[in-house]
Amino acid sequence: MPLTIQNVIDELRSSVPTINNTVDILMAGQPDTEVRGIAVSFMPTQQVIEEAITKGANLLITHEPLSYSHRHDDKLVENDQVFLKKQQLLEDSGIAVFRYHDYCHQKQPDIIMTGLLEALEWEANLVEMLSIAAVLEFSSMTVSDVAAHVKQKLGMPFLRITGDLSTPCSRAGILVGYRGGASTAIPLMREHNLDLLIVGEGPEWETPEYIRDAAHQGANKALLTLGHAESEEPGMRALSEELRQKYPDVPVSFIPIKPIFQIV
Amino acid sequence: MPLTIQNVIDELRSSVPTINNTVDILMAGQPDTEVRGIAVSFMPTQQVIEEAITKGANLLITHEPLSYSHRHDDKLVENDQVFLKKQQLLEDSGIAVFRYHDYCHQKQPDIIMTGLLEALEWEANLVEMLSIAAVLEFSSMTVSDVAAHVKQKLGMPFLRITGDLSTPCSRAGILVGYRGGASTAIPLMREHNLDLLIVGEGPEWETPEYIRDAAHQGANKALLTLGHAESEEPGMRALSEELRQKYPDVPVSFIPIKPIFQIV
Repeated sequence: MPLTIQNVIDELRSSVPTINNTVDILMAGQPDTEVRGIAVSFMPTQQVIEEAITKGANLLITHEPLSYSHRHDDKLVENDQVFLKKQQLLEDSGIAVFRYHDYCHQKQPDIIMTGLLEALEWEANLVEMLSIAAVLEFSSMTVSDVAAHVKQKLGMPFLRITGDLSTPCSRAGILVGYRGGASTAIPLMREHNLDLLIVGEGPEWETPEYIRDAAHQGANKALLTLGHAESEEPGMRALSEELRQKYPDVPVSFIPIKPIFQIV
Repeated sequence: MPLTIQNVIDELRSSVPTINNTVDILMAGQPDTEVRGIAVSFMPTQQVIEEAITKGANLLITHEPLSYSHRHDDKLVENDQVFLKKQQLLEDSGIAVFRYHDYCHQKQPDIIMTGLLEALEWEANLVEMLSIAAVLEFSSMTVSDVAAHVKQKLGMPFLRITGDLSTPCSRAGILVGYRGGASTAIPLMREHNLDLLIVGEGPEWETPEYIRDAAHQGANKALLTLGHAESEEPGMRALSEELRQKYPDVPVSFIPIKPIFQIV
């Protein structure tokens, strides 16, 4: 029996109760199409879609949306030349694009988190896996040491740091994606007695300002902001490896993206 | 008649219709206190409050909140050691802290925008002042040129850029603060035929990804992300100058903050 796109979607959604109003939808393509090749990426950029097509994939699985908004908003992109060109590419090629976001974060453990821990080679440092965060312990590490390690393991050209580079950190919390906002980050730091938060992104006037105040008061607190994609891409890479094992007869490729910001 | 804190608040709110449910509240202190000195800053950090007290101010006016959230949330900071220390400093010193946010953005022109244009020496480049954005025209400028100009005029150690540094830009839009999100930035860029957006901050998967797609498609589109504080602090500095002229008998000082991120 041929493997269809719906079969892959069902597999990705398995072992998680149905999520109502999920963003995990088929953003392009038809569910009954036979899967000839799968590409996985963090973001369905124009370039990623082109590369997926070149690699022969007819199903692209991404963590984030096509249309620059967490939920598709027709008004945002209607008659927009950039989005129209992207849609044209999708239509001309017939490639399907499925978003795998809510179901992967809901699955425990979340592959986005375990994929990041694996890429950072920090599995042995994990002391507690919470539903939305990981708590780690380090011995004799400063913020500067942790930053250097993260940059090297994730191949990142730069990192954003709040707090002092010399701050010793024995307990760190990781919050991927947009979970770096105050409502998640501040209670996590307080309740788990953390010195260091490592986040994807969040509003600048929230958690970073909390850290600034704490550091000025003399507390050992610091924040590493990785970037949204940098914090979640390793998990999508891990997903591509899982799919490769699950579907040995289907070519599965992973397409990395470049950092969204260049620092000048 | 002595000048009270309420007098200053009334002045700041004048010429704007009442805003319901505003965040522009007295976050600390009493309205009937006589004003002995005013300090103005973008953010009421622990350090800024200390400096305001040292300068003899008993009224601190800031654009952003004390408690790391756009609207104060008791649950976020109750029994939080960092916030408790900050509250203790406010109580011990008796300094009042007023937030000037909604009323200044509502006033037209918005001093946060005109203060930024003045700091950038771009008043002559302004072609249209919209309620939430400014549209500028340049001749023979690339993104790289604009970035160098912005860094120099604002004294910034770094800038985040999306798109190509060599992109020519003749029409640019400025969106201060958190207005860099897709819902404001994408329609602005489309409807005003802009090459360049200059924003405070916004979610990374929104406007930056739109720019990435546009640039990959060959369009002349780029984005400079200044940082939230960097985009709004010049306006608060301009406010301090206005207050100095309005109240010649009251000492008025401006307290700058350091960049919230260090790049390593």
